[in-house]
Amino acid sequence: MPERLLVIGGDAAGMSAASQARRRRGPADLEIVAIERGHFASYSACGIPYWIGGLVPERDALIARTPDTFRAEHDVDVRLRHEVFAIDLGRREVSIRDLDTGAQTREWFDQLVYAAGATPRKPPWARTDTAGIFGVQTLDDASALRAWLDAEPRPRQAVVVGGGYIGVEMAEAMIQRGLSVTLVEHGDQPLSTVDPDMGALVRDAMRDLGIDLRTGCAVTGLHERDGRVHAVQTSEGTLPADLVVLGVGVRPNTRLAADAGLPIGVTGGIRVDLQMRVLGMDRIWAAGDCVETVHRLTGQPVHVPLGTHANKQGRVAGLNIGGGYATFPGVVGTAVTRVCNLEVARTGLLEREAEAAGYQFVSTKIESTNRAGYFPGAQPMTVKLIADKRSGQLLGAQIVGRSEAAKRIDALAVALWNYMTVDDMAGLDLGYAPPYAPVWDPVLIAARKAVDLIHAD
Amino acid sequence: MPERLLVIGGDAAGMSAASQARRRRGPADLEIVAIERGHFASYSACGIPYWIGGLVPERDALIARTPDTFRAEHDVDVRLRHEVFAIDLGRREVSIRDLDTGAQTREWFDQLVYAAGATPRKPPWARTDTAGIFGVQTLDDASALRAWLDAEPRPRQAVVVGGGYIGVEMAEAMIQRGLSVTLVEHGDQPLSTVDPDMGALVRDAMRDLGIDLRTGCAVTGLHERDGRVHAVQTSEGTLPADLVVLGVGVRPNTRLAADAGLPIGVTGGIRVDLQMRVLGMDRIWAAGDCVETVHRLTGQPVHVPLGTHANKQGRVAGLNIGGGYATFPGVVGTAVTRVCNLEVARTGLLEREAEAAGYQFVSTKIESTNRAGYFPGAQPMTVKLIADKRSGQLLGAQIVGRSEAAKRIDALAVALWNYMTVDDMAGLDLGYAPPYAPVWDPVLIAARKAVDLIHAD
Repeated sequence: MPERLLVIGGDAAGMSAASQARRRRGPADLEIVAIERGHFASYSACGIPYWIGGLVPERDALIARTPDTFRAEHDVDVRLRHEVFAIDLGRREVSIRDLDTGAQTREWFDQLVYAAGATPRKPPWARTDTAGIFGVQTLDDASALRAWLDAEPRPRQAVVVGGGYIGVEMAEAMIQRGLSVTLVEHGDQPLSTVDPDMGALVRDAMRDLGIDLRTGCAVTGLHERDGRVHAVQTSEGTLPADLVVLGVGVRPNTRLAADAGLPIGVTGGIRVDLQMRVLGMDRIWAAGDCVETVHRLTGQPVHVPLGTHANKQGRVAGLNIGGGYATFPGVVGTAVTRVCNLEVARTGLLEREAEAAGYQFVSTKIESTNRAGYFPGAQPMTVKLIADKRSGQLLGAQIVGRSEAAKRIDALAVALWNYMTVDDMAGLDLGYAPPYAPVWDPVLIAARKAVDLIHAD
Repeated sequence: MPERLLVIGGDAAGMSAASQARRRRGPADLEIVAIERGHFASYSACGIPYWIGGLVPERDALIARTPDTFRAEHDVDVRLRHEVFAIDLGRREVSIRDLDTGAQTREWFDQLVYAAGATPRKPPWARTDTAGIFGVQTLDDASALRAWLDAEPRPRQAVVVGGGYIGVEMAEAMIQRGLSVTLVEHGDQPLSTVDPDMGALVRDAMRDLGIDLRTGCAVTGLHERDGRVHAVQTSEGTLPADLVVLGVGVRPNTRLAADAGLPIGVTGGIRVDLQMRVLGMDRIWAAGDCVETVHRLTGQPVHVPLGTHANKQGRVAGLNIGGGYATFPGVVGTAVTRVCNLEVARTGLLEREAEAAGYQFVSTKIESTNRAGYFPGAQPMTVKLIADKRSGQLLGAQIVGRSEAAKRIDALAVALWNYMTVDDMAGLDLGYAPPYAPVWDPVLIAARKAVDLIHAD
């Protein structure tokens, strides 16, 4: 009789684990069952804002593989609209509810992958039945939002709450659909995932696009009419709204895991070892937005719910379940996004994060261009570097540009991953040709300037 | 009395050295004289094909700083159209000829920067006075070529000899100017700076653009008429030609240096230490296309005449002359170019280079896209990796794509610089967002596949 792998959660992490395990162990050796609460498995959650905004025309374009594909090609039994509501580690069983019929069943397992993802945070005022309030974590969330946009009466005034990646991307998507959009952020800047000076560039771009940006503004309540949202009450007055998008972050979805006794870390995520095995547990694995990982520069546990990590972690878990050996080495805080035709990228630590981690640092910011200044299509680019004051070790980098800027962060992420100093970096052999860079790449110009600062005294 | 720095060669390396030295030492402390044979100083030689092709409309756009700027802002005495024809290290003097008047003078120096660049190789058949044959190493060369293109009778049939970066870029430039173009390459493929399988992609793109590509074909002679080139004789017959562009490489311009007793290495370039001091010489420096450097992966001396190295080496020499401390750490073979709307990039070693260096390796090639597959504007991209068979250390990488591809080589160059293994690389925290990458960046997909190969046995 084959061993049985049960996967809780059918998105990036869970399905990566399933397919990697299958690659190494055939159906006669390993049965795989994946339980997914929603209507979809294995899709690009990061693509949701582009479908909502209309840039990606079809929802199904976001779906990487359907349950039918998993069944036919990978022999993975994917059960959509089923929810695990209890895990019994002693008996190695889960209890499952069919969300359409209400029927309950139990399934045994030898190995378990917990990949339940994350849940959008709901402020107290959003815990209501009022229609027209949406998180955008899952494709089900997005489908509901899209239906609201397309139904009569058509919403015309959107309020987006929270100025993180999702909030900013969704604000732009609403503008693209012709709504008037207000973004309410209780902090001082949009995109607090970059330093305030870089965030100021984002702020300008958002305003140019016509987004009404209210920073330092808190939402305190909702007004409804006939069960539908009608306005948002803020610390600065009332904003009319027939659509509210929540972008105030997510929390790891660990209720079931915690109930079953899986260890939860200080970030709220499940604790795992390097192989993505739940810490101290036998053949119980976890991956994706529900786990915490380590930041390689601070040594601290962090919760970084990004699709790229979910995919890697799922692959690592699956490879190990399959009898291989792989590890997930932690993160360095790389993230890129497109905001209103700006490319925004970061890696490593922001100034406030470097300070909180106990570093003393210098930071420098330079302006250059993506191509040789004389080459057609040259666009401005700003690069900021943060380096340890004594050793010159690169601690963080941020880039804002208009074209061919965001992915330049990768070279910096690799430099930082390898604990390079800015002195070392100034000598790096990066690609140069006029269509792709000035003779001194902006990254090198920034490194040179950081070197000057480090050795200034 | 101030010390005197004399710089031979007024392009990237020489003028970088001059301005860095000036940044740290004022005119009262250091006098700087730069002697340049041509009509221009401090320009982008790499931009020449784009000016010839018309993409960059003005020649002067390629000039970073004029001699007047150097004089006024940096207090550097730049003498154009002057040629150093002898160096006397014992008396610390150079002999200089004014190329316009023929007048000869001597200048003393305390410190010397030798930055005489490289000279296009001339096959025996090209050593002739026949008009219409051009190298494209300097802006003077390019100006002469451009004048030939614009003069009556207008050339209509160009033969480009040599399929390296310059040859391929110039062939494209000639097409853009409406000429019919044949590129003759005696080897098996154009752009032998990438492996043959990647070069095949370049071959297709060149043919699509209308370049008549003849590989495995040798030029054996010229036919002239009234002192002008009329045809090119090849091993495969006669090609009509009223313009011949030489792209068969360059050699370090070291005649003067060798005559003066500076050490010349096995590559033909001047030998320097890490600070760009000529090996064993007191206050004699060299930088740019005339020096050899070390390849960090093979440990072998190499001659890599690229503007990016010239700038860095010049800066390092100037910084040290200025009393600072900097080193040039060698190269890893990174280069990018645009060929007929293909972006072509490489770093590290090709297969034949890895073999010659004594490595045993695996190589893998993957097809992916620059953006998420569903995102508008997604374009195909091919990534090839070469890794040490035993350790998995990355040895080389090549990328060919249509958009947002070339600069992805930088992350690989940094990985290789740090001796990362493909196992390490598969876990790298690179930037992901649908407008910029699939959820598995092509670089990571290639690393994963290389991991599979390394651990296959």
